[in-house]
Amino acid sequence: MSGIAMPQPDAGILARLPQIVAALRDVLPEDAVIWDPEETRAYECDALTAYRCPPLAVVLPRTTEEVAAAMRICHEMRVPVVPRGAGTSLAGGALPTADSVIIATLRLREVLEIDTQNRFIRVQTGVTNLSVSAELEPHGFFYAPDPSSQLACTIAGNIAMNSGGAHCLKYGVTTNNLMGATVVLPSGEVVELGGPEMGPTGLDLMGLLCGSEGQLGIVTEATLRILPRPEGARPVLIGFDGAEVAGECVARIIRSGVLPVAIEYMDDVCLRAVEAFAHAGYPDCAAVLIVEVEGSPAEIDHQIARIREIAGALNPVEFRESRNADEAMAIWKGRKSAFGAMGRLGDYICLDGTVPVGQLPYTLKMIGELSRQHGLEVANVFHAGDGNMHPLILFNANKPGDLERAEAFGNDILRLCVDVGGCLTGEHGVGIEKRDLMGKQYDGPDLEIQMAVKDVFDPRWLLNPAKVFPLDASQPWREEAATR
Amino acid sequence: MSGIAMPQPDAGILARLPQIVAALRDVLPEDAVIWDPEETRAYECDALTAYRCPPLAVVLPRTTEEVAAAMRICHEMRVPVVPRGAGTSLAGGALPTADSVIIATLRLREVLEIDTQNRFIRVQTGVTNLSVSAELEPHGFFYAPDPSSQLACTIAGNIAMNSGGAHCLKYGVTTNNLMGATVVLPSGEVVELGGPEMGPTGLDLMGLLCGSEGQLGIVTEATLRILPRPEGARPVLIGFDGAEVAGECVARIIRSGVLPVAIEYMDDVCLRAVEAFAHAGYPDCAAVLIVEVEGSPAEIDHQIARIREIAGALNPVEFRESRNADEAMAIWKGRKSAFGAMGRLGDYICLDGTVPVGQLPYTLKMIGELSRQHGLEVANVFHAGDGNMHPLILFNANKPGDLERAEAFGNDILRLCVDVGGCLTGEHGVGIEKRDLMGKQYDGPDLEIQMAVKDVFDPRWLLNPAKVFPLDASQPWREEAATR
Repeated sequence: MSGIAMPQPDAGILARLPQIVAALRDVLPEDAVIWDPEETRAYECDALTAYRCPPLAVVLPRTTEEVAAAMRICHEMRVPVVPRGAGTSLAGGALPTADSVIIATLRLREVLEIDTQNRFIRVQTGVTNLSVSAELEPHGFFYAPDPSSQLACTIAGNIAMNSGGAHCLKYGVTTNNLMGATVVLPSGEVVELGGPEMGPTGLDLMGLLCGSEGQLGIVTEATLRILPRPEGARPVLIGFDGAEVAGECVARIIRSGVLPVAIEYMDDVCLRAVEAFAHAGYPDCAAVLIVEVEGSPAEIDHQIARIREIAGALNPVEFRESRNADEAMAIWKGRKSAFGAMGRLGDYICLDGTVPVGQLPYTLKMIGELSRQHGLEVANVFHAGDGNMHPLILFNANKPGDLERAEAFGNDILRLCVDVGGCLTGEHGVGIEKRDLMGKQYDGPDLEIQMAVKDVFDPRWLLNPAKVFPLDASQPWREEAATR
Repeated sequence: MSGIAMPQPDAGILARLPQIVAALRDVLPEDAVIWDPEETRAYECDALTAYRCPPLAVVLPRTTEEVAAAMRICHEMRVPVVPRGAGTSLAGGALPTADSVIIATLRLREVLEIDTQNRFIRVQTGVTNLSVSAELEPHGFFYAPDPSSQLACTIAGNIAMNSGGAHCLKYGVTTNNLMGATVVLPSGEVVELGGPEMGPTGLDLMGLLCGSEGQLGIVTEATLRILPRPEGARPVLIGFDGAEVAGECVARIIRSGVLPVAIEYMDDVCLRAVEAFAHAGYPDCAAVLIVEVEGSPAEIDHQIARIREIAGALNPVEFRESRNADEAMAIWKGRKSAFGAMGRLGDYICLDGTVPVGQLPYTLKMIGELSRQHGLEVANVFHAGDGNMHPLILFNANKPGDLERAEAFGNDILRLCVDVGGCLTGEHGVGIEKRDLMGKQYDGPDLEIQMAVKDVFDPRWLLNPAKVFPLDASQPWREEAATR
């Protein structure tokens, strides 16, 4: 473990492992409870692999009722619960503590209902993001949020983290596409929020739950808004000889009223890595934008003409239009392999700060300066249209002190995002990674209110411990909760 | 007063009026506190005029600090506070109690910042909805939510009720367009939520606040997402000889993937009233849809062609395309005067249930049956694209028992909406009107959690009393709060 503190495991709980397992096995199928340390090790981390800790046990339910039964046992026995989807969190959102039981949604894999007339799909939340769209394809529909991890990540995790993706510029993030949720509360009670109609009545608990990072409950079933597939989509690639002018182009496109589905940004470090890895034929320049538009052929032509005009005024070094599906795929090929390509350069941390689009040029410049100060290379590849930056900080995990330097650099970048009017996270969540920066984002009563709301849902503070809220700020809440 | 109960005014508070007024005048400008019964009478109701009750006093602050000062006094002196925007609520959201002080946002009228690059406008929340778009017009931008009352209603009220409007089919309701909020909590503390960036960090308190009907705090400043004006927009009018086939046409358009900005529905009762009033030249048939699309001329042509094809398969009695701005205005003229036209037919209650779009035909048929059962006429004019129905129940306020019959009819319609998978309100809110139907919408722990969340923000339960939560269900919470 590195710089981020975790609470000491509760020795009392560790000693009660046999009773806890027995109680869980009493209410769950034989194969749904894992406690052999050889097997629980598979759950010791998520995609923030710098942090690892095997849990006490892992529960793999298949139904809402089984999730509720497991939650009830943990609540009664006062055992912390770490909810887990596919474990693709880049922020340590599913990192266990040694005294916790993981409740995973992986086996909740049924598609329950597809209703194209009312435009929704209802699924168990262990279904992966990509398979939701795959289910919809024969009907001519799709589900909009598309995180990079969409092949693996589950709807449960998407809801917990309010996930976005390249297409959220046009279609919004998970909260804009979630219509209803079946939620198991920490007590084991089950509550139905929302449904296939327009808005909530009274307080918007579903909106509150979306993005709550497993602090309030576990969503076992979800009703998701689906969209008809557009007639077509076409990307253009625009190369610039400077980061600032590329940032300016993004701001002008947004300002013009053209609403692309995606505006992706790659800087020179990323471009070189991608070229070496995927041979995508990208230009050798300071920054590349991929802008994708969709609609009917006429709409696409019209939008691309506008983008050509806007970009043209900024002297791009290249403006490459895709004329067919192969050329479109070639343009996307490099971007889609960017994270893999970066992995070949060494270890990296992937950040997730968000800034107002107009602040992109300044923020990119300052990240370059911070890179020089910290002596670590950084690559920028991100969803530029909504200002959601993903700086990748390169470091060497085998070099003592390098991870800590990378984390310090990352913290400086996130503070910068807040300083220019942005926030700590766009789509990855706070998790443990950004937990202790929450004080930078919030002053005044905001964080206290958030913790009081957590207290309403989870009065014993058992759900997803040591995440989201700074340990010191949440200490009094956890102490009080321990008396309940 | 009619069928809906309000709590007895607190005689102790009534007796302390002079001290309360003195304390408020101590911290506010001379002209900001009104307590003369002649003047407070102007605030005795909102647009649900069947219910009236003058407040104890009215506070008209000009700044966040003045709102905070007034809230602090009321909190310390344990005086209920009714927040009020322009008083256009159709659900009694701003109805005073006799022992309450109104804090109105009407004088918070400054436009603070327009940033077209980062696509936001920051305003004090007493600014009216329409004037926000008027401010943006010279910049080529607009603010999407457009409730029918947009000439009068304020942004504060829009946020409290999560208002929609005809354009929310494409652009979403207030919660989808609210980026940041300055909130005065019941204690008088001020908290800043969100800002001009993408998403919340930690729990989404801003989303929770939006649509909370003045139960959690008063929003004094707001950062709103703005959109570039489309190149053009054009409505078509489609007449059908049956309600069900018109409902079917709506469902097919939505399903097809064309995304109009608006799909409005008017039935025969409404059409006849509108013709008599506005002479809009609408066809004499069972139902009319107005479908508006926008974009470049090519996009508009393409979308209208698709709609013509879809509607054509359903044998419309008329398909009228607007070829220029005058014809467009003529198509909208009748719809925009519908509520005025209905007013000439007599008194009415305007409902606000929402149903899944696919349930529109069945729901319309059942409303007709309920109309015959209750012996009262009903007109349907509503935002069909998102299933947000506004049945207008006609009654005679001077006929004893008629209001009660209309309310009973309305309750049956709202129960029907819930039964077909919809909800009690699309954009008007719960207010007092639908308060006692909340038990129909919710069973299980949902409502209890909502009240516990209210408790976090407003531990003395002083904000907007007797709204949203059924009086009997909230009784224990209010009793507990009274001891704090």
